[in-house]
Amino acid sequence: MKLSKNKLYSVERVKDGHLTTTELLECAGYIKKMSNGLYVYLNLGQKVINNINKIVREEFEAIGMNEIGLNQLQTADLWRATGRYDDYGKEMFKFKDRSDNDMIISGTNEELVTAVAKDFITSYKDLSFTWFQTNNKFRDEIRCSNGLIRCKEFVMMDAYSFNLDKEDLEKTYNEVREAYKRIFDRIGLKDKYRIVGADSGEIGGSVSEEFIVDTVDGEVEIGHIFQLDDKYSSKLDVTYTDENNNKKTVIMGCYGIGISRLLQVLAEVNRDGNYLNFYSEVSAYQFAIAVVDVKKEEQLKWAEAWYKSLTDEYGVGSVVLDDRKCKIGKKLHEMDTLGYAVKVLIGKKASEYKHEIKRWSSDDWKETDGDIY
Amino acid sequence: MKLSKNKLYSVERVKDGHLTTTELLECAGYIKKMSNGLYVYLNLGQKVINNINKIVREEFEAIGMNEIGLNQLQTADLWRATGRYDDYGKEMFKFKDRSDNDMIISGTNEELVTAVAKDFITSYKDLSFTWFQTNNKFRDEIRCSNGLIRCKEFVMMDAYSFNLDKEDLEKTYNEVREAYKRIFDRIGLKDKYRIVGADSGEIGGSVSEEFIVDTVDGEVEIGHIFQLDDKYSSKLDVTYTDENNNKKTVIMGCYGIGISRLLQVLAEVNRDGNYLNFYSEVSAYQFAIAVVDVKKEEQLKWAEAWYKSLTDEYGVGSVVLDDRKCKIGKKLHEMDTLGYAVKVLIGKKASEYKHEIKRWSSDDWKETDGDIY
Repeated sequence: MKLSKNKLYSVERVKDGHLTTTELLECAGYIKKMSNGLYVYLNLGQKVINNINKIVREEFEAIGMNEIGLNQLQTADLWRATGRYDDYGKEMFKFKDRSDNDMIISGTNEELVTAVAKDFITSYKDLSFTWFQTNNKFRDEIRCSNGLIRCKEFVMMDAYSFNLDKEDLEKTYNEVREAYKRIFDRIGLKDKYRIVGADSGEIGGSVSEEFIVDTVDGEVEIGHIFQLDDKYSSKLDVTYTDENNNKKTVIMGCYGIGISRLLQVLAEVNRDGNYLNFYSEVSAYQFAIAVVDVKKEEQLKWAEAWYKSLTDEYGVGSVVLDDRKCKIGKKLHEMDTLGYAVKVLIGKKASEYKHEIKRWSSDDWKETDGDIY
Repeated sequence: MKLSKNKLYSVERVKDGHLTTTELLECAGYIKKMSNGLYVYLNLGQKVINNINKIVREEFEAIGMNEIGLNQLQTADLWRATGRYDDYGKEMFKFKDRSDNDMIISGTNEELVTAVAKDFITSYKDLSFTWFQTNNKFRDEIRCSNGLIRCKEFVMMDAYSFNLDKEDLEKTYNEVREAYKRIFDRIGLKDKYRIVGADSGEIGGSVSEEFIVDTVDGEVEIGHIFQLDDKYSSKLDVTYTDENNNKKTVIMGCYGIGISRLLQVLAEVNRDGNYLNFYSEVSAYQFAIAVVDVKKEEQLKWAEAWYKSLTDEYGVGSVVLDDRKCKIGKKLHEMDTLGYAVKVLIGKKASEYKHEIKRWSSDDWKETDGDIY
């Protein structure tokens, strides 16, 4: 994206002094608060979310999990069957459609996904399998707080496994647990989270663990995995016949990752003062190239050559070219604030085919005539 | 994905005789109806939707459009400001939150996106720009019909442009119009749609055009583009100062593509009897490899070598290996029904490193020892 042509954001000049991470994300044009607990993801925020989703998809597909898409608008009947239509309390948004049917918009999907899976399970040969999806969830939180950490609407990955028995569930649970570790490492949380035993709360079941990150505002939860056992499958009568033709109840697990919450957690744990830092794979735009003086033809040409090379390789959605007619100080400040993974500065050495480069892992600008990747 | 390990779907043996496209998609395990106007996308359906979204994103980013993510849950105040809280009628899902605030879940987003953009527009230098997003939309349809064509919840791409004046809007409108053509060509609708002038309906504005596909059930609309002019920007007071320091009202366009509707339209226009056919770039799994007899070691080995090569190149989410212990007739029937773009059959010629291949564009199996791609 060329900033001379596209008005991506109007990053406010971030002032000195401490900003909360929510404030920093707002100033930098990642998110915008619309009302209590409701946020819009601006282009930078949406792209980080897309990048996290891509990594989740890759790691889950690699262990044989299958992506699906559940309707967010649901009839109340399934929720009544498990008793959660009443148990869930005021956190659930409930309303009637034009035909006076009771409807909800979902905050979690154990009932619906179990009803869907039931149709595909007859015999032990149909088991086990795990489905995942990522979409927005809705909870009428009484106390929305801390930006994207506790909202009324949030992006969440929810996954559900359907297993033969406890041993089979434990196998899936551990595979997902390992996939979570790979995901959190890849997005920029290596050695920055811990896994703790947890209360299963509204979701229920026997065993559950939380993936926790410690931040300045306390602990925030980024992932939660549950062994549900037969809590939902028994109420919704999901059974199979085993090898000896005996009827057995399916055992379930469920697994969540707070995707929009991760945007804020990543910003929080990797920020450097009022500068954001995103790992290469999740950075909104992986590469940013700033031209010191666009009136100098050799600078603009060398920058555009790199821009073409990088967009050909990584896609136009991965590269920012700052070719605006403005002072280099403003450009550098924006690049640092926005936390692009690889920053490239093209100035007077362009005539010698040289540029300066600064990577996530390094604080210093280094002059080079080599590759940017 | 290896079918010996993953239970992707339980494709019902599609019977002879005519099935509607909705029935065919249900039998083949692409979608599942949950209640009136509410569908779940099973893995195959969700993957086609993901692939369409990827193409939309590529084509839109290439013309400088920026992806964002709007909240689906919205307060009523903005909708009251334009009068549409009442005008929209019973198609809008309305309810109260726990604090007695009037809320809606959105079927379209002119109000919200205009309120967001307003913050970024002061001067003519801030214009023009175009934002897009894809998420689920909600409409309380009185008559849901024809599967994914008219639903209460559906996946839709909605885009909004903010322009200087009518001429600038027309330029953006035409760029988006051309991008639509490229998108529809790439997903499998080349020469299968037409563009007609349309009534602007609830959305409003001056000029609008629909992208129409003719199917057995009549016309179904896959895209709609609008020149909104100042309908929303004047009511929400979105202005800028021009080069002469005069205050001007921003001019807008909006653009929609029915993504989940396209899943059914693609299935409809490219089906061959009860066999589905998806273009390479949108096919749920681009490659499917069936092993004739998994007990023959050379067949399984040759198939697994191809499986590894293709997953290394295209990702594990692009390849199905049918290595189940079942009759080849069942495997072939499933491959044909599900409409994978490239089908590969590995049988007794595996010892000579040969396989048979059938591509979307061809009806015949061809023996080869060459590349599968």
